[in-house]
Amino acid sequence: MAEKTGLYSVKFKEGINIKSVSSVGGTKEAEGPLSKAFDITTNDNLYGEKSWEKAEAKFLKKAFDTALEKGTLTPKKISYVLAGDLQNQTAASCYAAERLHIPFFGLYGACSTFGESLSLGTALIDGGWGEYVLCGASSHFCAAEKQFRFPLELGSQRPQTATTTVTGAGAAVLSKEGSEPQITAVTTGRIVDLNITDANNMGAAMAGAAAEVILNHFKDFGTTAEDYDRIFTGDLGYVGSELLYELLYEKGCDIKAKHRDCGIMIYDKDKQDTHSGGSGCACSAMVFSHIYKKLLTGEYKKILFAPTGALMNTTSISQGQNIMGISHLLKIESRG
Amino acid sequence: MAEKTGLYSVKFKEGINIKSVSSVGGTKEAEGPLSKAFDITTNDNLYGEKSWEKAEAKFLKKAFDTALEKGTLTPKKISYVLAGDLQNQTAASCYAAERLHIPFFGLYGACSTFGESLSLGTALIDGGWGEYVLCGASSHFCAAEKQFRFPLELGSQRPQTATTTVTGAGAAVLSKEGSEPQITAVTTGRIVDLNITDANNMGAAMAGAAAEVILNHFKDFGTTAEDYDRIFTGDLGYVGSELLYELLYEKGCDIKAKHRDCGIMIYDKDKQDTHSGGSGCACSAMVFSHIYKKLLTGEYKKILFAPTGALMNTTSISQGQNIMGISHLLKIESRG
Repeated sequence: MAEKTGLYSVKFKEGINIKSVSSVGGTKEAEGPLSKAFDITTNDNLYGEKSWEKAEAKFLKKAFDTALEKGTLTPKKISYVLAGDLQNQTAASCYAAERLHIPFFGLYGACSTFGESLSLGTALIDGGWGEYVLCGASSHFCAAEKQFRFPLELGSQRPQTATTTVTGAGAAVLSKEGSEPQITAVTTGRIVDLNITDANNMGAAMAGAAAEVILNHFKDFGTTAEDYDRIFTGDLGYVGSELLYELLYEKGCDIKAKHRDCGIMIYDKDKQDTHSGGSGCACSAMVFSHIYKKLLTGEYKKILFAPTGALMNTTSISQGQNIMGISHLLKIESRG
Repeated sequence: MAEKTGLYSVKFKEGINIKSVSSVGGTKEAEGPLSKAFDITTNDNLYGEKSWEKAEAKFLKKAFDTALEKGTLTPKKISYVLAGDLQNQTAASCYAAERLHIPFFGLYGACSTFGESLSLGTALIDGGWGEYVLCGASSHFCAAEKQFRFPLELGSQRPQTATTTVTGAGAAVLSKEGSEPQITAVTTGRIVDLNITDANNMGAAMAGAAAEVILNHFKDFGTTAEDYDRIFTGDLGYVGSELLYELLYEKGCDIKAKHRDCGIMIYDKDKQDTHSGGSGCACSAMVFSHIYKKLLTGEYKKILFAPTGALMNTTSISQGQNIMGISHLLKIESRG
């Protein structure tokens, strides 16, 4: 039974165990600084498939399979799979999950989806819905560019505020029992509208949501940045992270020393031409493999993990609607 | 704490109360046989907005507001809102939910989304995440035709197997306490692939998922169709319902006398030119107002409510991928 804490959070008497974590990435991810943290990387972004969309589903399926293998579990042991992605109607997740034959909840939280998936996963485990729940999220640079922006063949220039959609997928198995790092609290994000309309500046659209969910967490638990080893956001990138600091400074809060952004961590700013950093559902989902390793070794004792998403579609942009943000935060502690 | 029952279900010691239910519909819905069950109908499918997409968000916002009013609740009382729709990146739900300033979980289960929303809503209420959870789903005929099929101005003929996307939205408030009809069990659907590729025959794509989730529910609880006053599916329509009966007959199961399909109920076959019936997230979400009334009066004591969804997008169809189905089932009982 979760204990409601403050206005936006719950905490668990017994933490929700993160039994295993997986990540599968493409070329650029393999060339980046976190390459060694990923279970599988490929230099073929089509991953042997005939379309980018099918490749993305395969990345996610591979991440599901790898998380199960690492947890020495078969699909039959899993009670629910919760997943989402950026493809219209979350098609990648549907095609990836079908092959598992597990009860499925499809999610859409834009690039915050991995956080949403872990959040709702804790509710199912804690509530007695099952012993194991599989969570996942994926994105694909080529599928996203084609769907949201321009055909790649056009060679459009992108402004420096734009981020690069991560190609790959991440997954995690949550379990009732176990001695792995555990989720001990969840703070759920509201949709935040900062009046951003520039689709090439998603970081700004998400910064308000990240600031709000972090402040709400601090308020709900009476903590500050000092209480955590690290505070990770999803994919604010360089531009969004600066805005996050500004928004928090305004509220008398400084997290800069403790803050890291998965979008900044996944690529090398100097060697890889990724502008404001990485983004996409797979960004925080894959970087979570790196974070989880440091929780396993005890290098991190207590962290906040807050994937961030920008809410819009191509039609809403055309119709002049704002791009809104959302962020789902998890408090994760090592057993060390 | 939910009690896991069989392979795919949970039941609740104390049922999850459905405190209030709302529905807002467009022109065709107002002209249909269930018109009186809906809280609000309008003869302006643009609902005073400048685009169908914005209209859909307004339908959903109005459904949210109406469900809150009927439950004499303010948004501040609500711990979470769970919603989804058919627009790319579930934009209608995001724009509708933003204005409520409530922690938000975005869902995508195609036309089964209202069932998914209620299912995950029970987990949050039962698990102690809050006193009240707001669930909702929407769809809009014009937004869906434009996005999935052809511009309306083209006047394309649609085959008789095609269904008509319902314009409107439905919402419900789940609560811990109360004396209203309650959700006493949830059976969660798996993704089912019947090798359907015809985007004008969604009923067939969903029938397999509906058959499976109903059979799984019977198996998990040791019941048959005789144990329920009614078994509702979401939007199989005339074609899908016939296929459902065939699939169930093959398994020695006959639900025909107890079965009703929301897609068949919402329009008049003879007077309204809606081909195989209604569909869309709003179909089961709006018809639920009618069902809820009969649960309130005690005319129904125990029903199964299984919204159904077809999983695909325009790209997956172009790439020759199958249209898969999913269905989320709830057992709902009156207090009479």
